[in-house]
Amino acid sequence: MIKIVLLGAGNVASHLAKAFLASNAVELIQIYNRSKKNLKQFESQINTTTNLNALAKADIYIIAIPDDEISSFSVKLDTQDALVAHTSGSVAMLALAKKHRSAVFYPLQTFTKGKDIDFKNIPICIEAENKKDLTILEKLATTISDKVYKINSKQRKNLHVAAVFVNNFTNHLYHIGHQICNENNVPFEILAPLIQETANKIQELTPFEAQTGPAKRDDTQTIATHLAMLNKEQQEIYKLITQSITKTYGKKL
Amino acid sequence: MIKIVLLGAGNVASHLAKAFLASNAVELIQIYNRSKKNLKQFESQINTTTNLNALAKADIYIIAIPDDEISSFSVKLDTQDALVAHTSGSVAMLALAKKHRSAVFYPLQTFTKGKDIDFKNIPICIEAENKKDLTILEKLATTISDKVYKINSKQRKNLHVAAVFVNNFTNHLYHIGHQICNENNVPFEILAPLIQETANKIQELTPFEAQTGPAKRDDTQTIATHLAMLNKEQQEIYKLITQSITKTYGKKL
Repeated sequence: MIKIVLLGAGNVASHLAKAFLASNAVELIQIYNRSKKNLKQFESQINTTTNLNALAKADIYIIAIPDDEISSFSVKLDTQDALVAHTSGSVAMLALAKKHRSAVFYPLQTFTKGKDIDFKNIPICIEAENKKDLTILEKLATTISDKVYKINSKQRKNLHVAAVFVNNFTNHLYHIGHQICNENNVPFEILAPLIQETANKIQELTPFEAQTGPAKRDDTQTIATHLAMLNKEQQEIYKLITQSITKTYGKKL
Repeated sequence: MIKIVLLGAGNVASHLAKAFLASNAVELIQIYNRSKKNLKQFESQINTTTNLNALAKADIYIIAIPDDEISSFSVKLDTQDALVAHTSGSVAMLALAKKHRSAVFYPLQTFTKGKDIDFKNIPICIEAENKKDLTILEKLATTISDKVYKINSKQRKNLHVAAVFVNNFTNHLYHIGHQICNENNVPFEILAPLIQETANKIQELTPFEAQTGPAKRDDTQTIATHLAMLNKEQQEIYKLITQSITKTYGKKL
């Protein structure tokens, strides 16, 4: 059984802890966190500590803390040549201190506090310095997820920026749709099935194939009507993405 | 039983025809289309015609043709004071010729040829010149959908532009994500669960509440790293939406 110590108790750490606790193939033996507060939720189920010198001996140490703290934290971590993986999309594997057998265990998903999520469906991107460790990580990842990918640091960095487009930026477009609805006393829920179907479509088609609408058709009349209805900020976004779509379909530069 | 004649045989018309044929409460008695070609798919099930002078007598005539042809087409339509509804999100109700009892029957969804869709979940936005006709439309809409909304022309126009943001523009962000993956030999399918969850989240949270990521955190270091990885066109979109998110969360103008 793979023994794990989890370092961190934030959003990603909490979801990971739940998944590990639910798995029969791994043993989550300890959770460390700087402050006691976030550890409370785990105290009834598992050993917790706020003392880096009191870490238990494990097969893998998983760091789930803010991106910009990973590197300096890994220096302080004294686990005697242990396998140490961080969980970040944007931090390189070699940002971890050299004394460790460095690795990455990156679950690619947007985690919401308090909203349970089925880990089986969450892609886990793994990376390690050598084949043996990659095999250990793969074994660990497959105990909680059906979707495990070997992804190097450069690929992962690009994946992370792609994720910003399809998640954060998409959500902002939802927000603009929400604003427009509110301003016109239209319930936003009317758009929910469309939002769902837009996401569903690309499970079967490429986004390139799935595109429809005035920008793709180069329907300048509808585009002009739409622009006249928007505020300045919305107009700028509308114009730029419309240009980009028109360019993608080769009708105009 | 409400008798319907459908005018048009394109994408929306085909999906509507299927829904009407499957309903026991309405009778689709005829489909008209300018050309014979698209009518073939219906010939075995229903009377079809390419002759506007040979239209059957119905309770409602539903026009499902391209937006910019609706107005002129409605002038040619000679149905003696019948209830005539178009199915467009962006065309005003009063764009229909005055001789008709004008109405709108707008299913808000992205229809893909060949991909069946459950109409029960599709919001139908209805509008009519008088209450009696609105009641008829409501009766018709509820036979195929559980989500019927009374929406006036101004609201519908705004809903349509909001739909462009959450559907066409969102799909374009998926396309950019797809490009970035392709260029780095990363399978795009890794992003599919994230795309799904982003869409699912806003069934429970407002998009404002659901936002995460570097732009919301005003994480200038990650933003700079991301920008350096993108091509010029992607950079422009990244910058503009990041600015808009940062502004939304009030950290910077």
